[in-house]
Amino acid sequence: MRILVTAGGTKEKIDDVRYIANHSTGRLGSIIADSFAQDENNHVTYIHGYGAILPQHKNIKVVPIFTSQELEIALKKELETYAYDIVIHSMAVSDYTMDNAFSQDDLLNSLSDALFNNSNEITKESFEQLSANVLSKLGKENEDKKLSSSNEHLILRLKKTPKIIKMIKEIQPNTTLVGFKLLVDVSEEHLLTIAHQLLEKNDCDYVLANDLTSIEGDQHTGYLVAPDKQLRVAHTKPEIAKLIKQTLSYND
Amino acid sequence: MRILVTAGGTKEKIDDVRYIANHSTGRLGSIIADSFAQDENNHVTYIHGYGAILPQHKNIKVVPIFTSQELEIALKKELETYAYDIVIHSMAVSDYTMDNAFSQDDLLNSLSDALFNNSNEITKESFEQLSANVLSKLGKENEDKKLSSSNEHLILRLKKTPKIIKMIKEIQPNTTLVGFKLLVDVSEEHLLTIAHQLLEKNDCDYVLANDLTSIEGDQHTGYLVAPDKQLRVAHTKPEIAKLIKQTLSYND
Repeated sequence: MRILVTAGGTKEKIDDVRYIANHSTGRLGSIIADSFAQDENNHVTYIHGYGAILPQHKNIKVVPIFTSQELEIALKKELETYAYDIVIHSMAVSDYTMDNAFSQDDLLNSLSDALFNNSNEITKESFEQLSANVLSKLGKENEDKKLSSSNEHLILRLKKTPKIIKMIKEIQPNTTLVGFKLLVDVSEEHLLTIAHQLLEKNDCDYVLANDLTSIEGDQHTGYLVAPDKQLRVAHTKPEIAKLIKQTLSYND
Repeated sequence: MRILVTAGGTKEKIDDVRYIANHSTGRLGSIIADSFAQDENNHVTYIHGYGAILPQHKNIKVVPIFTSQELEIALKKELETYAYDIVIHSMAVSDYTMDNAFSQDDLLNSLSDALFNNSNEITKESFEQLSANVLSKLGKENEDKKLSSSNEHLILRLKKTPKIIKMIKEIQPNTTLVGFKLLVDVSEEHLLTIAHQLLEKNDCDYVLANDLTSIEGDQHTGYLVAPDKQLRVAHTKPEIAKLIKQTLSYND
């Protein structure tokens, strides 16, 4: 079998020295990759965020990426080159990437200029449109490679990244796809409801749902959610890896 | 002698899973710490950002921190407990930390509500004041531990962090303080002008000025700027460490 595992976190550039990151270490993904690589017939590819933990097994093909855009390119290349039987997408992909940055003072000046230089009558709707225009343009002409730190308040305006997970089945409709969902401090019921919604929304065969408050080192509660509604639970990272491997093997 | 070296970068929390970081690896700081620790009579303390490279020398006291606020606490404790002869502050401290986060839609709605629910006549000044109030309050009542990713544009409003470097001479007026300044792709003249301004602004005895475009691995051009206007230059990380150590030793 050919298995693709993504792990770790993507990072989004703010300027040449700063970026937005997340706490994902890639440890669970590395254990899953190693678990599949134990079988000689398996070919495992590991796409990982910069600084993530790497799997131990020497036959794993390792592909490093930094941003969500680099992930998209790397993933597309793999999926267009090889037929993957299984894709386990454990990477924490940034939901947002930088659009533009500006000081609060510049925002206030530009908003009031736009409002008071406008000769038409202002309605709620036109005011919101005018403000949205200001927000989308501010700071974009700025070519500074390191944002100035002279302002009391700096505003980062982020835009949504494309849902990379949706691309997977578009390119390879027959692969078995495991998506991941991390929430923080929610009820088990809420976590499982969201996970079931994601099965359909992201076209996943399974979703591994977990809550940050139940993760500490190797202790890690994970629910493997599937359309059959059977609840599969594991309580450590190696157990989660085993659960995923066993469930997907019986599935074949 | 007692020497304090700070190195690596601070990280600022966005929510329970995301943070803002910078690319500083701490490598130069670790080499400087090792260089001073070679002399048996020196006591070296190394305060470093999470994930930074550590010095090799086993007698160095190592203090890890995550945020700029944790740095402030750790630095204060060291300076109030021991008399440091030298402080080399090479850490890349975040200029900004999170204040509040909100969607662009919420911002537009709140701004237009504030504008149209206002019964007084609106002037440029009152509009800016009213908008500043909206910006400072939005999202603060929100208790989500992971920001929702359902909005097209997410806005992070950051506030300036206190200038931690200024605290150093306030607590220990007699220490020799080396500050660091990193700019990106500027002229040598501009870099040196800014560095000279910082000598006074941050109450430093020396400023090590460098430009990101002249840093690659151990290749690293650094200018050690002092009030005597003598230009001291080094071209690798070990050379910069040697330059700082020699210059500060002759100074004693």
